[in-house]
Amino acid sequence: MAKKEDSKVEEILNDTEEATEEVTEETIEENVEEISQDSEEASNDKKLEEYMDRYKRTLAEFDNFRKRTEKEKLQTYHRATKDVLEKILPIVDNFERAIGALPEEEKSNSFAQGIEMIYKQFLNMLNESGVQIIEAVGQEFNPDFHNAVMHTEDDSAGENVVVEELQKGYMYKDSVLRHSMVKVAN
Amino acid sequence: MAKKEDSKVEEILNDTEEATEEVTEETIEENVEEISQDSEEASNDKKLEEYMDRYKRTLAEFDNFRKRTEKEKLQTYHRATKDVLEKILPIVDNFERAIGALPEEEKSNSFAQGIEMIYKQFLNMLNESGVQIIEAVGQEFNPDFHNAVMHTEDDSAGENVVVEELQKGYMYKDSVLRHSMVKVAN
Repeated sequence: MAKKEDSKVEEILNDTEEATEEVTEETIEENVEEISQDSEEASNDKKLEEYMDRYKRTLAEFDNFRKRTEKEKLQTYHRATKDVLEKILPIVDNFERAIGALPEEEKSNSFAQGIEMIYKQFLNMLNESGVQIIEAVGQEFNPDFHNAVMHTEDDSAGENVVVEELQKGYMYKDSVLRHSMVKVAN
Repeated sequence: MAKKEDSKVEEILNDTEEATEEVTEETIEENVEEISQDSEEASNDKKLEEYMDRYKRTLAEFDNFRKRTEKEKLQTYHRATKDVLEKILPIVDNFERAIGALPEEEKSNSFAQGIEMIYKQFLNMLNESGVQIIEAVGQEFNPDFHNAVMHTEDDSAGENVVVEELQKGYMYKDSVLRHSMVKVAN
C-alpha cells in the first residue's frame, strides 16, 4: 500500500511532465536556426517581423502557463489533503461503531469516557481540516451528496426523502469527500 | 481554527503570486515598443539581434520556470499531506495513553478489544501514508530526530544514549513530522 502512495505521487509528477514540453538549450538553438534558414533569402525585415512575433507569442504562452500554475498548485494542495482525509474516514466509522455498541453499564467507566473524548477530538480535527458531515436523514434525496443503497415504500416522511443513514458522508470544503449511504422513501 | 487552514492556503497562493511576475498584454507591447524606440535609428540588423536575444532569453526563462514548477508541485503535495498528518498525531498519542491506562481486568472485554483493533488500523493508515516511527530508546541521541527534554547521570546504557521516550516521534518519508521527546544519559 505504501507503493500505492508512491504511484500517486509519481502520477502527479507525470501529469506535470506531460503538461510541460521541455525546452532545452538545443531547442532554443534549433528555433533560432530554423528562422535563420527559413528566411535565408528573405529580407532582414521579414526576419525581424518573425522574431517579434515569436517573442510575443512566447511571452503570452509563458504568462498563461504562470496563471495555470497558480491554480494547479492550490488544486494539488487540496487533492493531497483529500487523499489523506479519505483514508481517515474508515477509522472514524469504526470508532462510531465501537462507541455505538458499548453496553450501557460500561459507558461510565474511565476507559470508555477517554475513548469518547478522543472521538470528539477526532471530529474537531476533521472539522478544522475543512471536513463537514453531509446532512442526510430528513433531507430530500440528492444524488450529488447521497448514495441510495436501499428503498422503502413507506413514504410517510415524504416522497424522495432520506429516511435512514447507513454510512455517514462527508464534504471536504466544496467537494464531496464521501457520499453518504442512505435509504430513501419512494 | 478553520481560519488557520484558510490562511495556510492563502499563503501558498501568495507564494506563487510573489514568484510569478505577471506578464500582461501591455507588458508584451511595452517590451516590443521599447526595442522599436530604442533602436529607432539603429539598423534592422541591430534590432534583429536584439529580438533574437530577447526571444532566446525568454525561452530559457520559461524553461527554468517549468522545471521549478514540477518540483514545487510535488513539494506542495507533500506539504499538504504533512499538514494533515501532523494534526492526527495528538489523536494517536491520546489513543496510546488510553490503551496504556486500561486496567488489566478490562483488557478482554469486547469494547477494549475493538478499540485496540481501531488503533492498529490507525497505525496501518499512517504507515501507508508514508509515516514511520522514529527509533528512540537504545539509539544514540541525534538532534535531527530526537528532542532531549530530560537528562540522567546514569549512563549505564552508554554515553549520549536515549534511555526513555516521553513522546513518540514520527518521520514522513525523508523528513521529520515530529521529533521524539526523549531522556538522554550524559
